[in-house]
Amino acid sequence: MPTTPHIEKHFTAGDTVRDVVIGMSDGLTVPFALAAGLSGAVTAAHVVITAGLAEVAAGSIAMGLGGFLAARSDAEHYASELAREEREIVEVPDDEAAEVAEVFRTYGLTADETDQVVAALRTRPTAWRDFMMRFELGLEAPDPKRALRSALTIAGAYAVGGMVPLAPYFFASAVRQGLMVSAGVTMVALFAFGYVKARFTGAPPLRGAFQTVLIGALAAGAAFMIARAVT
Amino acid sequence: MPTTPHIEKHFTAGDTVRDVVIGMSDGLTVPFALAAGLSGAVTAAHVVITAGLAEVAAGSIAMGLGGFLAARSDAEHYASELAREEREIVEVPDDEAAEVAEVFRTYGLTADETDQVVAALRTRPTAWRDFMMRFELGLEAPDPKRALRSALTIAGAYAVGGMVPLAPYFFASAVRQGLMVSAGVTMVALFAFGYVKARFTGAPPLRGAFQTVLIGALAAGAAFMIARAVT
Repeated sequence: MPTTPHIEKHFTAGDTVRDVVIGMSDGLTVPFALAAGLSGAVTAAHVVITAGLAEVAAGSIAMGLGGFLAARSDAEHYASELAREEREIVEVPDDEAAEVAEVFRTYGLTADETDQVVAALRTRPTAWRDFMMRFELGLEAPDPKRALRSALTIAGAYAVGGMVPLAPYFFASAVRQGLMVSAGVTMVALFAFGYVKARFTGAPPLRGAFQTVLIGALAAGAAFMIARAVT
Repeated sequence: MPTTPHIEKHFTAGDTVRDVVIGMSDGLTVPFALAAGLSGAVTAAHVVITAGLAEVAAGSIAMGLGGFLAARSDAEHYASELAREEREIVEVPDDEAAEVAEVFRTYGLTADETDQVVAALRTRPTAWRDFMMRFELGLEAPDPKRALRSALTIAGAYAVGGMVPLAPYFFASAVRQGLMVSAGVTMVALFAFGYVKARFTGAPPLRGAFQTVLIGALAAGAAFMIARAVT
């Protein structure tokens, strides 16, 4: 019998894949667009490289730490709501039982139809608490190790992604040449990344690939024109 | 009687606040860190301004379009799962009924205790489908207008946030002076933003304020050192 396969998937590989996607999406796009933008405004490759590496450092730290704090704040929120449900189940069990019935009522079930389940949950406080967490509040138990792993995964993916568009500038004899190679390499990387990402999320892969390339191209084009305009 | 207040909150102001937080977190942090990093490596304010504006353009487009596609892909995923549940309720109703019982079984409820609810859901296909979406798959109906609003909110918040650290460089006579004013203004902005953000998410406000300042300072410090090292 199939048992909540989507939720289980969400809790294992799903989170890591999601973190890689979060980090690499921006890591491939923003440093590429910044470098492309600067290539339209400066002639020294070392300025592009300096700005690009500074952006990769700033972006990976900001996104990684942001992910760390977000995951930790999710865990704290869950713990405080869990404590509140436990307290309410002891202190105001009738109110809590009415809330269970209320959850079902939103699905068109009457009090008569649900009193059996309500009565059964009242005899099992732990199951009752977990039921309220998930079905009343819509919260799922976070993985305690997730915050650190999430931070490192996002930051690492951002840095790896960011080096793809920057690497060509290290070897280019002129900024314009670096831009050409960088644009080619990054478009291929964005295409492959968008394709794989779509496979993971269940979207049509080719559409995902073209969408990802489009985002990168639009961001780079806007950065290029703005940098040109202000120089 | 209180009815799932957290979920309702999540569906209205919560999403917009979340989008502003997503855009402004990175918008205040990354352009600030990039400008600070470049300030350690170049002496011309216009290079810092050019790179900063290019970054703001690239970042807001990349994050806004990313948010747009993520929200649209959520909506598509929901629609396809909804169609699947509708089909299964018609084609394999006994399997679906067993899945309802299975959801409850993970909360320690026996088949006897839940057969009333299962029978009641079987008489109401729409409620049954919605119940499966939420309780078996953990999916909530996305707002159809959310994708565009989310994109514009994230991009706008990023651009507004990004102008805070860059503005001082427009008026500074030297890069070093711009950096000093930018750091001061941005630290105050990060503190205020972190404070307000924590108020919205229910975290301790002062801790949120200091954490947000810390992320900005670490990102800027790392960008500064890397830019120095490669120049």
